[in-house]
Amino acid sequence: MIKLDFSKINGGLLPAIAQDYKTGEILMVAFMNEEAWKKTLETGLATYWSRSRNELWTKGLTSGNTQKVKEILVDCDLDTVVLKVEQIGGAACHTNKRSCFYRKVEEGKLIEIM
Amino acid sequence: MIKLDFSKINGGLLPAIAQDYKTGEILMVAFMNEEAWKKTLETGLATYWSRSRNELWTKGLTSGNTQKVKEILVDCDLDTVVLKVEQIGGAACHTNKRSCFYRKVEEGKLIEIM
Repeated sequence: MIKLDFSKINGGLLPAIAQDYKTGEILMVAFMNEEAWKKTLETGLATYWSRSRNELWTKGLTSGNTQKVKEILVDCDLDTVVLKVEQIGGAACHTNKRSCFYRKVEEGKLIEIM
Repeated sequence: MIKLDFSKINGGLLPAIAQDYKTGEILMVAFMNEEAWKKTLETGLATYWSRSRNELWTKGLTSGNTQKVKEILVDCDLDTVVLKVEQIGGAACHTNKRSCFYRKVEEGKLIEIM
């Protein structure tokens, strides 16, 4: 298995970015520990470590909005990954939006763009 | 100023993803503290917190490879930002590659794609 560097954030976490494999849109960012990384590789479903629930989190197992991993990119320092995914159900965000990044900064305020 | 949630990672950091504003390619991921966030908003140049050097880091000030911020997206939880940037100098990575994500996972190995 490809060894990543889980040492930089306390708790052995690294950021994982889910990006739509067709459009390039960034859908969400979550964290992985080594167990989540291993499970993602084994199952082909994006699996993170939930910092709020403190448990392994295969995205969409309860909501149905799973993320099929099409490609994985790894950065220069081996401490961040990009998952190019097919977002099942059309919503990555718990707000039911397509992406968690549904707001942009404009004149010092946040405005919704989707 | 838009208040973000800097509490979730020890040291008051949040992940910031730099994405090419034209192509959607993810160029790099770094971290911001509140000072870096404020400086990014004020200057329009992507500014991070260097975890290795423990100092404010306006990307490219020494290399020339600055990142002009074209748009900023904020996520549902106010704890991650996407900077849509124009990458000056054509290289976001310290390896001189266009993106830090220049390798992909293939059959359990990392292969270079740029």
